[in-house]
Amino acid sequence: MTFNESNQPYKFARHEFKKDRTVITVKGHSIGDGHLTVIAGPCSIESEEQIHSSAKIVAECGAQILRGGAFKPRTSPYSFQGLGEQGLIMMKKAADEFGLLSISEVMDTADIDLIAYYVDILQIGSRNMQNFSLLKKLGRVKKPIFLKRGMSATYKEFLLAAEYILNAGNEEVILCERGIRTFESYTKNTMDIAAIPILRELSHLPIFADPSHGTGIRNLVLPMALAAVAAGTDGLMIEMHPNPEQALSDADQAIEPQDFAKLMAQLNKVAA
Amino acid sequence: MTFNESNQPYKFARHEFKKDRTVITVKGHSIGDGHLTVIAGPCSIESEEQIHSSAKIVAECGAQILRGGAFKPRTSPYSFQGLGEQGLIMMKKAADEFGLLSISEVMDTADIDLIAYYVDILQIGSRNMQNFSLLKKLGRVKKPIFLKRGMSATYKEFLLAAEYILNAGNEEVILCERGIRTFESYTKNTMDIAAIPILRELSHLPIFADPSHGTGIRNLVLPMALAAVAAGTDGLMIEMHPNPEQALSDADQAIEPQDFAKLMAQLNKVAA
Amino acid sequence: MTFNESNQPYKFARHEFKKDRTVITVKGHSIGDGHLTVIAGPCSIESEEQIHSSAKIVAECGAQILRGGAFKPRTSPYSFQGLGEQGLIMMKKAADEFGLLSISEVMDTADIDLIAYYVDILQIGSRNMQNFSLLKKLGRVKKPIFLKRGMSATYKEFLLAAEYILNAGNEEVILCERGIRTFESYTKNTMDIAAIPILRELSHLPIFADPSHGTGIRNLVLPMALAAVAAGTDGLMIEMHPNPEQALSDADQAIEPQDFAKLMAQLNKVAA
Amino acid sequence: MTFNESNQPYKFARHEFKKDRTVITVKGHSIGDGHLTVIAGPCSIESEEQIHSSAKIVAECGAQILRGGAFKPRTSPYSFQGLGEQGLIMMKKAADEFGLLSISEVMDTADIDLIAYYVDILQIGSRNMQNFSLLKKLGRVKKPIFLKRGMSATYKEFLLAAEYILNAGNEEVILCERGIRTFESYTKNTMDIAAIPILRELSHLPIFADPSHGTGIRNLVLPMALAAVAAGTDGLMIEMHPNPEQALSDADQAIEPQDFAKLMAQLNKVAA
Repeated sequence: MTFNESNQPYKFARHEFKKDRTVITVKGHSIGDGHLTVIAGPCSIESEEQIHSSAKIVAECGAQILRGGAFKPRTSPYSFQGLGEQGLIMMKKAADEFGLLSISEVMDTADIDLIAYYVDILQIGSRNMQNFSLLKKLGRVKKPIFLKRGMSATYKEFLLAAEYILNAGNEEVILCERGIRTFESYTKNTMDIAAIPILRELSHLPIFADPSHGTGIRNLVLPMALAAVAAGTDGLMIEMHPNPEQALSDADQAIEPQDFAKLMAQLNKVAA
Repeated sequence: MTFNESNQPYKFARHEFKKDRTVITVKGHSIGDGHLTVIAGPCSIESEEQIHSSAKIVAECGAQILRGGAFKPRTSPYSFQGLGEQGLIMMKKAADEFGLLSISEVMDTADIDLIAYYVDILQIGSRNMQNFSLLKKLGRVKKPIFLKRGMSATYKEFLLAAEYILNAGNEEVILCERGIRTFESYTKNTMDIAAIPILRELSHLPIFADPSHGTGIRNLVLPMALAAVAAGTDGLMIEMHPNPEQALSDADQAIEPQDFAKLMAQLNKVAA
Repeated sequence: MTFNESNQPYKFARHEFKKDRTVITVKGHSIGDGHLTVIAGPCSIESEEQIHSSAKIVAECGAQILRGGAFKPRTSPYSFQGLGEQGLIMMKKAADEFGLLSISEVMDTADIDLIAYYVDILQIGSRNMQNFSLLKKLGRVKKPIFLKRGMSATYKEFLLAAEYILNAGNEEVILCERGIRTFESYTKNTMDIAAIPILRELSHLPIFADPSHGTGIRNLVLPMALAAVAAGTDGLMIEMHPNPEQALSDADQAIEPQDFAKLMAQLNKVAA
Repeated sequence: MTFNESNQPYKFARHEFKKDRTVITVKGHSIGDGHLTVIAGPCSIESEEQIHSSAKIVAECGAQILRGGAFKPRTSPYSFQGLGEQGLIMMKKAADEFGLLSISEVMDTADIDLIAYYVDILQIGSRNMQNFSLLKKLGRVKKPIFLKRGMSATYKEFLLAAEYILNAGNEEVILCERGIRTFESYTKNTMDIAAIPILRELSHLPIFADPSHGTGIRNLVLPMALAAVAAGTDGLMIEMHPNPEQALSDADQAIEPQDFAKLMAQLNKVAA
């Protein structure tokens, strides 16, 4: 049940390497310290108004981190590709106003410095989990890295991707289970809840869950968020949009503000 | 998001067919009424002493149904195949002594009457989920059927398998998510927790979860049982053995009596 | 790369057990002797005229075995379930008239004697590959068994299913690769062509390929049949219907008589 | 059976867009013109002697393109990462000496110009199939792009990845099926031979097959190469190493020079 070291060396990410769990502190907020951290916001930053409105709801409901994509990995070249730096500026302003931390995805080594300038946490998306050039260069950045599991990555491959970042010098890596690809096509992905306790046992890194991408279906976000918490997740990443039906990306999975408020209320009950 | 009726007719299992959820009552115990039902016991019935000891623990910890296999579907013909009728006699005695209901698997249409004579609920295993002859004949039995999802069955195929039973006249079908086959080989199966809220929405039938087969790893049973409860399961099926290391089958996933006691205590807390 | 014997005993199906490859002779036709054997015919036997017309085409094009289902494993209880014994009588008459061997699927241990009375080879379908009661009882029949790979069965599980039959006394087992279930939904299944050379290396049993179920798309049958031959298959199973558009089952994958004639002509070229 | 345009726009890669199949001509060699093109060489460029010796064998056996990795996407940061520019210099020298074309993988947008300076064809590996920044920038390069299918990419996602390149202005894209990830762990990947006829029907782009990565097992390379040819592939990519047992990467799947010679001889027979 433990990885074969002789076969595939693997060092810093291992639980044995570090007895205490890694706790990452950003501007006073601690991730992985036993309290649940919630990241929420729209898939894409679409306008100043949209991200401002999102930030307000995120803060009022008690979540800590604002998400929003500025450089979007879209399956089709004809889909909305994000607002780029302009979007990052909008998000920084909104996050600052409401005292939120911020997170956004980086897709290209050429954009690392730019994105790191505006946000608190850098995200590596599923499609780039084995973009080794990106992993190595993010290992030299002085900000936490939020690493999403590849859609067909094994636990071993996932931890070895984290290892690239750790080995390059950045010890602040957050793992995120976001659903894997299976034969079942009713959901966008099959959320692998068991990844949570397994990665907690194999590694000392914080582990998050993303029930929005994990299912792709709005009304599964609540039950799957609760399941992730029951299984021991350190945090959640939730897609919430002020007006999901007008979202430029991932419209089916973003939840409405009122449902996000209900979710946060239920999470607080469970936590208690 | 709903099945295409014109393409694949599908009637009795659907939520629309029956507004109230199906509640199945067996000897005074109700399944699917909002309270959690727990089925527990060894993979295989191995001896009078083993099943008696198992039943005692199951009852003392507050579970309601005793499981134990007498006819075992084993991947290899050289593995232990079960004690047959002798095992059923042993289990009935143990269940009766401790006031438990009992469940056992049926693999062959030729054995239906025999097994139905001794147990309260008949189980169809994953490998037989699309054994249509078995489904049809169990549709004519007057006992509840516990139908496990095939290891690569879609939700639609799962519900159509239930439909075979319902259509043949038996309205008492319990669905059970028990893990699906994916590329990840660290666990025996990938437990599809999202199946729980999805099947609750698509159908009126009670839905259970089996974290023992769902993961195949003893120390994942607790977190995954909690996750299933958080996601809304009507019940759990847990492999518990008085002495897991000496189990003749599924030794890696059966939990010890003391861990089962802890699990039941935690479930009661969550329920409260 | 060889199966771990200590972990999962496995004996008769192994290549090491028998140095020469198994050749099965039925009414003078040898299967697995180095010549390609072709099984063809409709998914279901639908009428005397349909199976007669099918047999005529199968024979004229030079194939040796007529297929046709009388007991059909259908995903939905509302789909056509087959003509039963009546269908077997029709197929036997047609096969005899054109000097063809015949094959049909058995789904229930209760039907074994009946089907064995009418056909030369008994088929176990994918959904029943791990119906162990059926495997054991077919191990006591004196006719060859055509065993289809389960849709998510590993090579090891497939060979252990064959082992059930061999171990019960029937040495005449033919393996058939028919596509596995993957994330790709464009095709009905993903045909695992590598199974052919792998199973030839691991076992001495004849190995066939079914490009009709393997893809589920009519115009992929020819290229995938040729690929299977190039990879070393002992035989092919092809769905051909005198009038595919009116087929009561699997209408999308059955090829027309003229395309079957072209396929047989190409196979003869490749063989030469 | 065709992609839904309204749902996911998709234009240049489609067969309907261009009636004639795309033929790519590099230094006088045509790819996709009906003749089989063979790319061969080691996984990694390891030394001047190794790549020189490889090039000699590739040329003598009649293949046209030399492969060799200089920037290697390795699952672990502790595995050999490639010789970088030094390796490219070695490969260019060897390719030139034997009149071969050359291909190597690019992993980072920062390396595009460097790699494009030394090789004739730029490869995008499976792990980067949805590295959209890389795809867009390679769409502005004036050399052919060899795009490998992601290990869990659907046909649609694969063609949309090609579309990113085409849409950015580079019309010379070669698709390559290299095995997908399934539940079967006996082979490294499951080679999806049906992808060949399907992609030929959906698109006008040349389609190659890589039986080395497609199986990960040396002695499956020959039968799977033949199967790919039978299914209509435009070309093959084969890992061959002068001394496979001493290879620094992919030692299990590289074939020996004498087996490569046999493979080329058999391919010539089949072609004739």
